[in-house]
Order: sequence, then structure tokens, then C-alpha cells
Amino acid sequence: MAEPHSPTARTRVVREPERGVYDRAAAYQILDEGFICHVGFVMDNQPFVIPTGYGRSGDNLYIHGSAASRMLRNLDQGIAACVTVTLLDGLVLARSIFNHSMNYRSVVVLGTAVAVEDSAEKLQALRALSEHIVPGRWDQARQPNERELRATLVMRLPITEFSAKVRLGPPIDSEEDYSFPIWAGVVPLQMVTGLPINDPKLDPKTPVPSYVRDYSRTAAR
Amino acid sequence: MAEPHSPTARTRVVREPERGVYDRAAAYQILDEGFICHVGFVMDNQPFVIPTGYGRSGDNLYIHGSAASRMLRNLDQGIAACVTVTLLDGLVLARSIFNHSMNYRSVVVLGTAVAVEDSAEKLQALRALSEHIVPGRWDQARQPNERELRATLVMRLPITEFSAKVRLGPPIDSEEDYSFPIWAGVVPLQMVTGLPINDPKLDPKTPVPSYVRDYSRTAAR
Repeated sequence: MAEPHSPTARTRVVREPERGVYDRAAAYQILDEGFICHVGFVMDNQPFVIPTGYGRSGDNLYIHGSAASRMLRNLDQGIAACVTVTLLDGLVLARSIFNHSMNYRSVVVLGTAVAVEDSAEKLQALRALSEHIVPGRWDQARQPNERELRATLVMRLPITEFSAKVRLGPPIDSEEDYSFPIWAGVVPLQMVTGLPINDPKLDPKTPVPSYVRDYSRTAAR
Repeated sequence: MAEPHSPTARTRVVREPERGVYDRAAAYQILDEGFICHVGFVMDNQPFVIPTGYGRSGDNLYIHGSAASRMLRNLDQGIAACVTVTLLDGLVLARSIFNHSMNYRSVVVLGTAVAVEDSAEKLQALRALSEHIVPGRWDQARQPNERELRATLVMRLPITEFSAKVRLGPPIDSEEDYSFPIWAGVVPLQMVTGLPINDPKLDPKTPVPSYVRDYSRTAAR
């Protein structure tokens, strides 16, 4: 996972090149922390950007959906796709409006997504999707049956052509602005979980499992 | 802002049509709560999806960036774009893996973004972008000078062709799964701010302004 990775002309970070990250382990850490991705694809010359869940297994990204979904039916035709995952870490308040920014970590993966036909890989991909969001859930829940597997389209996008971009730290103002009499700094942002809400149809005696009670997305960071 | 809005064939929600929201006020509430959007555009038949800040002023979305940025130079040519804003509200744990889901609110805007040439509109758009992220900051910070305005490209995307999609509430399981002996419900997710971090170059006697100290994105909900 730590081999060097060369950006292509399409994935090289052009603006603020110091923010470009091309190392696979760093990109995977971002991918593994995100909840959703934004999938880009083209239909009739119109780009579409759709949010959806995803999972990573080795060097592949998996997305899934109904076999009837417009997005996935379209990807099934083998057209080019772009999958972007963005984590927002903070608002960066500079002295000048011009130098305001955000702290973030993002990964862009370009490629062609193909439908997974092999049923073993399909099941493994759905497990990766599930464990990506709630580790521990797959083994406890009622797993997909044959009918559900047929109704689910799973697409594989190899993580081959990708780049990551990271901005962190305090604002960077122009030298002449540091004397401007205003507070400057960072307002950290974090996605946090609230207390689990029982399904109203749940027997209230059912215990909340530890992987839900102690759920913490960022504990591993 | 509350006029009826008819989806086009491109923005009508096909999957889970009950989640489709076409009312402008509801879409604007989602747009106003998000921090970043994901912009989709096409270069050489390859879709790209790039995260960036945005602002809304009336029925227009504005994004901005360096006049040299690859994304914005490309949009400047007048090609089709898609801007998507997604708010993630919770993880939905059903009895079956198949019925797991997420609670979210998202808006997709399709159209052609054009560069803002008029300097008054440009300044107003930058103000909208700034106030969108940190209300109150624009009037306090050092505002853009002529050189910075020239170095900034602002693009306008009219909010004409759009749709929103909302999923909320508990999991929906198949009838036969409700007896499956497992906890089911929702793990709420929320983006929260941490304590402001002073720029190390800041005079530590500088007070934290109230719009930072009391910053709350979701207080208005």
C-alpha cells in the first residue's frame, strides 16, 4: 500500500501543488474515513454528480445500488467515471477575505467502473460496503439472499488513476495583512454521531450492540 | 421562493421517487446549510468531480477560485456543469443488510456556469460565498482589492434545473424481517464545530468575535 504512485496529467494537482498527495496509503486513509462519495458520470454530454455509499477492498472501490438505478445502469455501459471523497476538517479564517480557506482532505479516482458479475466478489464487495459504514454489522444482520443479490448492481472501480489533496493548518495571510486588527484562525469541523435512535418497531428490550453504542468514526485517527 | 417547480427528465428522481423534493424553498434550505459542493464537469470525455465552496444569492449559485484553476478555466468555456450538495444526517441500520441506508438531504443543480464579468456582481457573489460560510465575517475582514478581484474567477450557475432528494426516519424492513433478533434504528450524524484555534501568528490578546465563538451551523434548523 505504500508504493510510490505517479499522477497522470489528469490527476496531477495543478493549483496549490503543495497540497497534492500521491501516496496510496494516505489516499486510502481518506477513503476509509469517508461515509459517502460523489460519483460523476456523463449522459448526453451532461455531467451528473450523485452522492452514494462506497466500500474499498484492496485496490478497488465498490459502489452499489438497485439494478434499475439510472446512475448504475449508465455506469454499466462502461463509460468513464470519477469518484470523489471529501472530508471537511475546518474553516480557515484569514485577515483578508481573499485568503480564507477550508481545511479538508479529498481523494479523486478516475477510471471506468464495471459491473461485478462474479457472485463471490459481489458478496465480498457488499460486505466491504457494509463494514465500511458500520464495522461489525455484516455478521449480525440478515445477509443478502439470492433475490436481493440479483436486484443489486455492484460496480468496481480500480484505484489506479487517483490523487489526493490536503489542506491543514492555520491561515496564510499576505505579509502586509498580519497587522490587520482581526481575529484569525481555524474553526475545526467534525462529523460526530448522536445517541442511537431505536426503530419505533423495535422491541425496546433489544440491547444496542457495542459496535453501535461505541461507534466512533474518528477514534482511529 | 415557494413557486412550484417541475422536474425535467434529467432531474426527476427515478429511484425511490417518494424521496424526490422539487420545491424551491426546501432545496434552498439544503443549499444554505451545506459547506461545500461537488462540481462535475467534463474534459476530453472524462468527468471530474471537485469539492469547492459556494454561495447562493437569490436564484443563482456562485462558485469561485483562481483564474488559473483547471476546473474554473474549463467551466469558463461554457460547458455543462452539475453542482451537488449533500448533507449526511444519519446511518440507517435495518435488520437486513439489503435495507440498510443513510439519512441525507441532497440537491443536484444542472446547467451551464458562466463567468461573472460585472465587477459589482463579482463582489456581491464573493460576499455571498463568504457570508455563506461565516456570517458576519465579510464586514470585519480585509475585503478584496483590485488585484485580488482580477485573480479570482467567479462563476454563476442559475438554479433553474434542479432536484432535491431527502431520506429521513427509521429503517424500513421487509415484513418477514421484523422478527429478526437484532437492534435496528438510526445513528444520527452531525457536523459540529470545535473550539476556535488561534492562528499562531495572532496577538493572543485579540478577542474571538461572537460570530466565531457562537458559530453554529445547525442552530437555525
